[in-house]
Amino acid sequence: MTAEHVIDLNADLGESYGAWTMGDDEALLAIVTRANVACGFHAGDPLVMRRTVRLAAARGVAVGAHPAFPDLQGFGRRRMELAPDELEAMLLYQIGALAGVCRAEGVPLAHVKPHGALNNMACADVSLARTVMRAVRAYDPALPVLAPACSALEQAALEAGQPVLREVFADRAYQADGQLVPRREPGAVLHDPDAAVAHVLRMLAAGGLVTRDGAVLPTPIDSICVHGDGPQAIATARRLRDALVAAGWRLAAGAPSA
Amino acid sequence: MTAEHVIDLNADLGESYGAWTMGDDEALLAIVTRANVACGFHAGDPLVMRRTVRLAAARGVAVGAHPAFPDLQGFGRRRMELAPDELEAMLLYQIGALAGVCRAEGVPLAHVKPHGALNNMACADVSLARTVMRAVRAYDPALPVLAPACSALEQAALEAGQPVLREVFADRAYQADGQLVPRREPGAVLHDPDAAVAHVLRMLAAGGLVTRDGAVLPTPIDSICVHGDGPQAIATARRLRDALVAAGWRLAAGAPSA
Amino acid sequence: MTAEHVIDLNADLGESYGAWTMGDDEALLAIVTRANVACGFHAGDPLVMRRTVRLAAARGVAVGAHPAFPDLQGFGRRRMELAPDELEAMLLYQIGALAGVCRAEGVPLAHVKPHGALNNMACADVSLARTVMRAVRAYDPALPVLAPACSALEQAALEAGQPVLREVFADRAYQADGQLVPRREPGAVLHDPDAAVAHVLRMLAAGGLVTRDGAVLPTPIDSICVHGDGPQAIATARRLRDALVAAGWRLAAGAPSA
Amino acid sequence: MTAEHVIDLNADLGESYGAWTMGDDEALLAIVTRANVACGFHAGDPLVMRRTVRLAAARGVAVGAHPAFPDLQGFGRRRMELAPDELEAMLLYQIGALAGVCRAEGVPLAHVKPHGALNNMACADVSLARTVMRAVRAYDPALPVLAPACSALEQAALEAGQPVLREVFADRAYQADGQLVPRREPGAVLHDPDAAVAHVLRMLAAGGLVTRDGAVLPTPIDSICVHGDGPQAIATARRLRDALVAAGWRLAAGAPSA
Repeated sequence: MTAEHVIDLNADLGESYGAWTMGDDEALLAIVTRANVACGFHAGDPLVMRRTVRLAAARGVAVGAHPAFPDLQGFGRRRMELAPDELEAMLLYQIGALAGVCRAEGVPLAHVKPHGALNNMACADVSLARTVMRAVRAYDPALPVLAPACSALEQAALEAGQPVLREVFADRAYQADGQLVPRREPGAVLHDPDAAVAHVLRMLAAGGLVTRDGAVLPTPIDSICVHGDGPQAIATARRLRDALVAAGWRLAAGAPSA
Repeated sequence: MTAEHVIDLNADLGESYGAWTMGDDEALLAIVTRANVACGFHAGDPLVMRRTVRLAAARGVAVGAHPAFPDLQGFGRRRMELAPDELEAMLLYQIGALAGVCRAEGVPLAHVKPHGALNNMACADVSLARTVMRAVRAYDPALPVLAPACSALEQAALEAGQPVLREVFADRAYQADGQLVPRREPGAVLHDPDAAVAHVLRMLAAGGLVTRDGAVLPTPIDSICVHGDGPQAIATARRLRDALVAAGWRLAAGAPSA
Repeated sequence: MTAEHVIDLNADLGESYGAWTMGDDEALLAIVTRANVACGFHAGDPLVMRRTVRLAAARGVAVGAHPAFPDLQGFGRRRMELAPDELEAMLLYQIGALAGVCRAEGVPLAHVKPHGALNNMACADVSLARTVMRAVRAYDPALPVLAPACSALEQAALEAGQPVLREVFADRAYQADGQLVPRREPGAVLHDPDAAVAHVLRMLAAGGLVTRDGAVLPTPIDSICVHGDGPQAIATARRLRDALVAAGWRLAAGAPSA
Repeated sequence: MTAEHVIDLNADLGESYGAWTMGDDEALLAIVTRANVACGFHAGDPLVMRRTVRLAAARGVAVGAHPAFPDLQGFGRRRMELAPDELEAMLLYQIGALAGVCRAEGVPLAHVKPHGALNNMACADVSLARTVMRAVRAYDPALPVLAPACSALEQAALEAGQPVLREVFADRAYQADGQLVPRREPGAVLHDPDAAVAHVLRMLAAGGLVTRDGAVLPTPIDSICVHGDGPQAIATARRLRDALVAAGWRLAAGAPSA
């Protein structure tokens, strides 16, 4: 079986905080191969982080940092304007904090993926994406960034020579330029699990993003982003996993394809 | 020159936060050889941490983590009751966060010293001290803890086999059992800089704590804790440094003496 | 129907925060007559507070402030040591914040009940209870405090001349001195809903606390504290309400009995 | 003496936080007639708020709420995107919190002035300004908003029928449309105290904003905004006060002029 038949499933985990629980991490960890672990700025607290890293390690799931804007109340979904050196330091802080927890648990830090509004903004604004990259690079020039294929974040990683894992979204339609169809437009989100599974298989087979017009934008695809919010999301993720296995894919948190 | 003629001066640094400045870090970094850098829970923010680490490195001052209770408003001085596993995770988080900043700056993490109420409680309560030690040990069994000589924190380090740097306080009187005279008692604090300098030189010469009754409690002394809050404190620290040099001591952030 | 046939059911509400949901406020508001609304320090955020006040008002449920230690991560359950003037100011801040929301909604502020560790400590330490009372009194000398019958908090209210609503717990056993049996002791919590209902009816009939030895400690009883955490708790609360109605009690958020 | 000979000086106060001090509130309170008191989201904590209200009351200085984005680390200077209902609730929360402190001190709440990035954004974006106005109006339809003359915030107040106090800036140049010259442009800030004083006197005499081109945009002027950051700022504020008195103005926190 060749390298291109290995595929990775990633999801956000460790999003509980203090007395509040979010998501069903145990169920999700039985499905995905890579976990984006909240680092305390938008979700997660030190104890939640440690438990999540332990659970992931016990399941053989790779652990990455999921840093965010300092916005617990808004779950990191509020757009904020931060000075570049301040954002860079905040990212270092969060990556280091999770890395400290990982070190205590004997787990390697496998990647970094920005969260929420920070991710959305960095995928559209290459200047912001370069700030993210400076932080990751300052921490470790060999640490992969998990970025949407064809995004400004991917571009900044390539520019900097930082390893990048390209992800696609199972449940989102793509525009002709490879950007996600905005959620407010009809057809932006594939609510039907079968459609989502078919969408993923089509992109993997085509070796690129398949736009809503049916065009193919060739790109390496290293990972598929799935969601864990609610029983429906978990069922969809499980169905996708089963379909991938049935189609001959091996699920693993692999190295960047390029 | 033998090992016992090397002495270390440590102080708390990086205690600014956002728009608020505290202390004169530049002045203090010209005096001390070891900086306890706030990790964001009681003071410091990611940008302040990065600047402090850079400044310390430029001065050749060793950098350690100064983790605290999660208490920004109370500057970590409020006593809190935390579950042991929660405190342990919080310490890992803070140590990791500073280590991430240090890594980006190419600076080794030299030690851990608990801050404020956490330190006071861990110096008196060996059970709490053991929780601190589990966190440090989980992060790195070779990372020294900076602990007051004859404290429960030192005891927990010795029990665990964690390297320990023993510190004495230039401006505090000791009780017969090696504990600090409580601040509310007369003579607890040596306000006169000359008295503080003499106190330190006497302890270094005696090779142990000198109690207020004049008794000597033998202990290795690796470091002297000085303060930077206010021009008076900095002047005292500078005078102590000059007196140590004049007495033939070499100032350096050395390895634990035992 | 005489005044003693009116009884109030109170519960903690508005404990969601940002993206995290806690409890089933809608279900609970169909049962209780008085809501203790979190004020943002241990739970609740401004939007959650406003929604909770609106929901309570729509149900005709009285709204009170449920201030806490500044401890979001610990849900206000961590014991903390705060200077009295600082705690007093924090309580004023929280009461005022909820009162501002109430004012915007045209809802009167009906009472204050401390939360979590603050409540536990103030129920056992009359000095701390007096600090709580100073804050409530500074805000409004006519605003009732909701306090466990026979607690130090009740005592401080009586001393100060602050109106007090005495509450009993449906699911907790009492010691001979009127204090709650500590949770670690067997029989401390009445897990059986029937036992809890019987416990309450017995106390209301006896006009006082009924201890685990069967003794009666006479006290006015203005309110019964119920819980909303989990479907079981809500079912128990509903059963209690039904039993009270069946026994001829009218449920309403009444004025202090004395 | 007619109403137009009364003028008000306002400044931001109570910007310390926990162990960190900012500004010289005592000095500033001897100069200004109206204090914009931080409400804990960008600066200030409950104890600082209470002390500031006490100090202001003792000086006869009017007290207003200075609410901000939830951004302690960024001092409320970071631009954020908040859902309108969320921002409205946050403003209510902050206004209520300060009002609670004021009530305990027997001090009336005199006005509301948004802080930092929130103020800047609301002065340029009438939609955001309307959200601010909804919050103030929900709290008290008679509570004045302190807004820059000719700003979108003033416009939203006028639309809503909310009383508005128009302020001018002593040290800022105005564009032809009444907006502030952006700080990055030359001449945006009047660093020379004499120039600032002359600028104010000219605007008061002209009954309107005087633009950098010398044109007059007629507007009621109720208040002059001064700063307290640093000894220089305080000296300038004092000089302005002295010049106003010498020119026959009476300093007082008056009612809105229209």
